[in-house]
Amino acid sequence: MSTQSCPRVLALSGGVGGAKLAHGLYSILPDWQLQIVVNTGDDFEHLGLHISPDIDTLLYTLSGLANPATGWGRDGEQWLCMEALSQLGEADWFQLGDRDLAMHLSRSHRLRQGSTLTQITQYQAERLSIQARITPMSDDPVPTRVHTDAGQLDFQHYFVKERCLPQVHALEYTGADAAQPAPAALAALQEETLEAVIICPSNPYLSIAPILALPGFREALRNTRAPVIAVSPLVNRKAIKGPTDKIMRELSIQVSSASIANHYADCLDGLVIDYSEQTLAHTLPLPTLVTNTLMQNNDDRCQLAHACLNFASELKQAKNQNRAFS
Amino acid sequence: MSTQSCPRVLALSGGVGGAKLAHGLYSILPDWQLQIVVNTGDDFEHLGLHISPDIDTLLYTLSGLANPATGWGRDGEQWLCMEALSQLGEADWFQLGDRDLAMHLSRSHRLRQGSTLTQITQYQAERLSIQARITPMSDDPVPTRVHTDAGQLDFQHYFVKERCLPQVHALEYTGADAAQPAPAALAALQEETLEAVIICPSNPYLSIAPILALPGFREALRNTRAPVIAVSPLVNRKAIKGPTDKIMRELSIQVSSASIANHYADCLDGLVIDYSEQTLAHTLPLPTLVTNTLMQNNDDRCQLAHACLNFASELKQAKNQNRAFS
Repeated sequence: MSTQSCPRVLALSGGVGGAKLAHGLYSILPDWQLQIVVNTGDDFEHLGLHISPDIDTLLYTLSGLANPATGWGRDGEQWLCMEALSQLGEADWFQLGDRDLAMHLSRSHRLRQGSTLTQITQYQAERLSIQARITPMSDDPVPTRVHTDAGQLDFQHYFVKERCLPQVHALEYTGADAAQPAPAALAALQEETLEAVIICPSNPYLSIAPILALPGFREALRNTRAPVIAVSPLVNRKAIKGPTDKIMRELSIQVSSASIANHYADCLDGLVIDYSEQTLAHTLPLPTLVTNTLMQNNDDRCQLAHACLNFASELKQAKNQNRAFS
Repeated sequence: MSTQSCPRVLALSGGVGGAKLAHGLYSILPDWQLQIVVNTGDDFEHLGLHISPDIDTLLYTLSGLANPATGWGRDGEQWLCMEALSQLGEADWFQLGDRDLAMHLSRSHRLRQGSTLTQITQYQAERLSIQARITPMSDDPVPTRVHTDAGQLDFQHYFVKERCLPQVHALEYTGADAAQPAPAALAALQEETLEAVIICPSNPYLSIAPILALPGFREALRNTRAPVIAVSPLVNRKAIKGPTDKIMRELSIQVSSASIANHYADCLDGLVIDYSEQTLAHTLPLPTLVTNTLMQNNDDRCQLAHACLNFASELKQAKNQNRAFS
């Protein structure tokens, strides 16, 4: 089956920035050559629904259903159910669009019937005619807990309800130690034919760290023959969207792409940074590509994707030579 | 609490016809003087949601949220979620409106959290500012099974998916024997202050029979001091809506209000029939009121409610005299 064939490119993604680059890669690669491992640390139960925000964002983005204004949720969305839920006194701090609800209903129903998140995501991607393999990082729950000055918060409480306002002391990827990383992700990393692993410009601490916290995942990333490159989410020392830079400051991490390189450290063969951070380039201890990382439209996404694949291609030769000599 | 006070009138209801008369009674009675026992034989699980169509219809009708064109569902409804569910390949034979979905989500979530259907219905009625007590017939599942020439069908499969087309051989109120009838309904029937029990012009076989099949319910109805009157759902020997007359023919029951009287038999002190069936009046073995039972607008609902209460008031005196002599 085409969905089971070996991908040429493996991307790690979470959030809106991640989905944008994944979309760029998806747009320029032939069908079924892209596999995306998605963060599920943001997943939560809400009104009896299993909500996987990062999977949804990716499915909507790749199928062209995403709301272009927000980057999350669906285009042409309406909120009649939400309004009626409020009228019934139900929690209304998490926005559930009428169209979006179908995804949560379908997923929750199928989970209760015994399907795995991986199976369901693959099914939903097929229904939305997506010709890429989307792999949740794990079928086991690994809910991110945010330790803040307002107490320990579930991720969505911190992120949506509290709008990232509390100061973060630590992040905890609950259950990661005992979780089984997606076999399809580990298998892809071992493939000889894999040409690139691209860590998308997602929040390194909230979106990518949960994936790397899974047993064996970081090691698999270190051992893959393909070059591993990360795209720094910082532009002008700020995150385009979301609390990356705020969290870095709160965790006493210097807000710089150098810190991003350091975060991925031993896994990384190359870093992609924005023009606005180019003065860093010569100070970094690894190959660095300077380009435009701000994705304001589809062309930007495709150009960044191209740049990443070319960069990976250069690095691949070097990596395999090193490997041959080591 | 006002919601706990004794009702003056107890109505048994299911479906659109039942909700219309219940609404008439609700409109003319002072707050909290009406209690409505609702059929839950139509309840079913769909896409992980617990759907109680007759409770929903009643809640929407009494709160003024019902769709006036259909009688069921909500006014100003839209179907974006349904459209997205179809896109995801989920079952779409049962219409779930975007606003309506909130009711199912709220109920399903609260059931999973351990609340009873009775508690949830009371909560929802309060949220919708309904000043009447709405009592699901039981908190135990009593799903109606329809034995047809197309096999045994779950009620909603027969009713919605198959549009009542298969020929009915028998109706089965599954689990009724072991179900606990709503204590609040039995208690109301024992109240000295109860002035009338009104069996609404619902489908006697699909909407009212499940209530009467609950252990002790029929006996409580026989023993109540209040007069029990039924409003025949037939006008011109046809049901206004739904398959009542079709089912009567298929079960070899004469399509006549006389058969309705016979169906309720020992429970009944009086029958209300439509002008179109008035030639029956002198042939029936019990007091009969002939009036307009077709409820095309709110005035019709109130007039029929008034007629029922007046009729009950006349019957009450006679019933209590008989009781004194017996």
